[in-house]
Amino acid sequence: MRTLNVDLADRSYPIYIGEGLLDDLRYFEPHIRGRQVAIVTNETIAPLYLDRLQKTLAGYKVTTVVLPDGEAYKQWETLQLIFDGLLTARHDRKTTLIALGGGVIGDMTGFAAACYQRGVDFIQVPTTLLSQVDSSVGGKTGINHPLGKNMVGAFYQPQAVIIDTATLKTLPPRELSAGLAEVIKYGFICDEPFLTWLEAHMDDLLALEPTALTEAIERSCAAKARVVGADEKETGVRATLNLGHTFGHAIETHMGYGVWLHGEAVGAGTVMALEMSHRLGWLTKAELDRGIRLLAAAKLPVVPPQEMNAEHFLEHMAVDKKVLDGRLRLVLLQGLGGAVVTAEFPREILEETLRADYQALVGQAGEH
Amino acid sequence: MRTLNVDLADRSYPIYIGEGLLDDLRYFEPHIRGRQVAIVTNETIAPLYLDRLQKTLAGYKVTTVVLPDGEAYKQWETLQLIFDGLLTARHDRKTTLIALGGGVIGDMTGFAAACYQRGVDFIQVPTTLLSQVDSSVGGKTGINHPLGKNMVGAFYQPQAVIIDTATLKTLPPRELSAGLAEVIKYGFICDEPFLTWLEAHMDDLLALEPTALTEAIERSCAAKARVVGADEKETGVRATLNLGHTFGHAIETHMGYGVWLHGEAVGAGTVMALEMSHRLGWLTKAELDRGIRLLAAAKLPVVPPQEMNAEHFLEHMAVDKKVLDGRLRLVLLQGLGGAVVTAEFPREILEETLRADYQALVGQAGEH
Repeated sequence: MRTLNVDLADRSYPIYIGEGLLDDLRYFEPHIRGRQVAIVTNETIAPLYLDRLQKTLAGYKVTTVVLPDGEAYKQWETLQLIFDGLLTARHDRKTTLIALGGGVIGDMTGFAAACYQRGVDFIQVPTTLLSQVDSSVGGKTGINHPLGKNMVGAFYQPQAVIIDTATLKTLPPRELSAGLAEVIKYGFICDEPFLTWLEAHMDDLLALEPTALTEAIERSCAAKARVVGADEKETGVRATLNLGHTFGHAIETHMGYGVWLHGEAVGAGTVMALEMSHRLGWLTKAELDRGIRLLAAAKLPVVPPQEMNAEHFLEHMAVDKKVLDGRLRLVLLQGLGGAVVTAEFPREILEETLRADYQALVGQAGEH
Repeated sequence: MRTLNVDLADRSYPIYIGEGLLDDLRYFEPHIRGRQVAIVTNETIAPLYLDRLQKTLAGYKVTTVVLPDGEAYKQWETLQLIFDGLLTARHDRKTTLIALGGGVIGDMTGFAAACYQRGVDFIQVPTTLLSQVDSSVGGKTGINHPLGKNMVGAFYQPQAVIIDTATLKTLPPRELSAGLAEVIKYGFICDEPFLTWLEAHMDDLLALEPTALTEAIERSCAAKARVVGADEKETGVRATLNLGHTFGHAIETHMGYGVWLHGEAVGAGTVMALEMSHRLGWLTKAELDRGIRLLAAAKLPVVPPQEMNAEHFLEHMAVDKKVLDGRLRLVLLQGLGGAVVTAEFPREILEETLRADYQALVGQAGEH
């Protein structure tokens, strides 16, 4: 078991990483204030892990809320089911919500905790690689709106994040790769040596080798914790975590939520950000190729969807949250490990990036 | 014009009080960061003041959102109309929401600001006495849930509160009295000399005499700002602001939202809290009578609704937010000006309070 601390101005919390933590009350107990606990999960995760967690928390008055599964349900009507469950069982301000599931469950449970009686405690128990290395760290919570992803939410920190690496055994391979997109991202934005480590251990990670998994999760969470600790409300450096996300969100929105997994869209989006950085002269061709090879080794899509053209991308990117005062800001790389957030690029470079032949680029990258 | 500052650990903001501020850009300009502004108001207030405020803010890109009027609309579906308006007009993270209206508009607009893109700026322009002296100060925002009032919300501070006392000229007399219930409350909980001032100026206040109004609003806001500044998240002394509110919420819930105005329910609820304090030996009979006379002079109901018995009260009070770990906490007075929050009272005293003959009490109070 490894413990990491996320340091924030007014609030800090630990992340525990290890096998079998789901069955160990010692990781939960110090972070539960009252006698009431509500476990929020979904129909896919409930049959796998709900009983075990209920057994661990048998000493508390436990309410369970089982939501439908999927990004399409990350919206108000589903959130309301959490409030209904809490109010029906008369949970008071000292209750603790526990999010058992992936990013959607974590985001909705965190937002419910932020809003219920104007704020109660919550604990994250992420069961997907993506949520373990990304959404469970940093306090972003919220729901989607028909006109945009994550448009309604709060910055709200958990009391603790408890990562049981054994839960990845039930994760579909496509979702494992999607999680690896965010793992690789940390190397690109701020940790070049981590890229070398990932190149050496990608096969172990895909085979769920426990030591490699723990190392990758810890290093990813540490990178994110460092960045979030420096900039909780995303006024500066935190925005670098969105490498590949502006392009990726355009893909998710255009294809319809859930058709491409978030991590898959980030994978292809990251290739576009690398391509644009190279086009600006900020990355060498060798660095671009190295990046594409690593993403492809994680079995991620490295080519944007064929049905999308440059105009589609521009249209979707105009409502992205990263637009301030009408100027599009993008996360780009000045060397591997050196992310910058900038609106200082010629419009033509962006358009050329959107029109580039990614199939050909991937072919060239593979030739090394 | 008078300016008060609300001091909070991480956030402070000014309250401006005076006649005609609605038409004066100088009070708005320093608190608007970007070029986008969204005015949120309701169907009653819009015909009275929306044009004037739009004229004042003519230099900005202004979106207006006009909601249906009433506590019954303080719920998610109405809140969604604000998000729809913001997203349709492509408001970004630098937008400023302006709440133009009473407490319901302020609570919903504040909560929308807390949640939109995980938090944007907002300014309160309260147009009722109640919202000027109570809900616009302190950062409580939120909506109702079918199972309870204000069950979903956030603590979120405005950039500024701009109180134009001239807006009270269009306020129905019943709502003026309801606002006076909260004004009087500040005297009861922490400012005994203010009670003496109110006894001397109640007729001026009911006649909307500008100097008296400004003084009463400023003194009320100052009292609330002091208490909120000492305890933003309501972990201690802030709870004293709920004098009369636990009994009052039971009245509002039982009668149906909006049948009794919030301030009316607080008026009768405060009489009950005074009666219980007297019954515990913490207030003299003369103090109890003085309190009842002052509330009656403000033309407030001082007798709980005839259709409610002790069992009705107990049932509704059990789901009140002031219940922690199943123990009912009440705000009571140890002398006028000395509020305490306590669960330390015999159950019988509470039940006797709920069964007391308030009609007779009011008769006795009037005999002085």
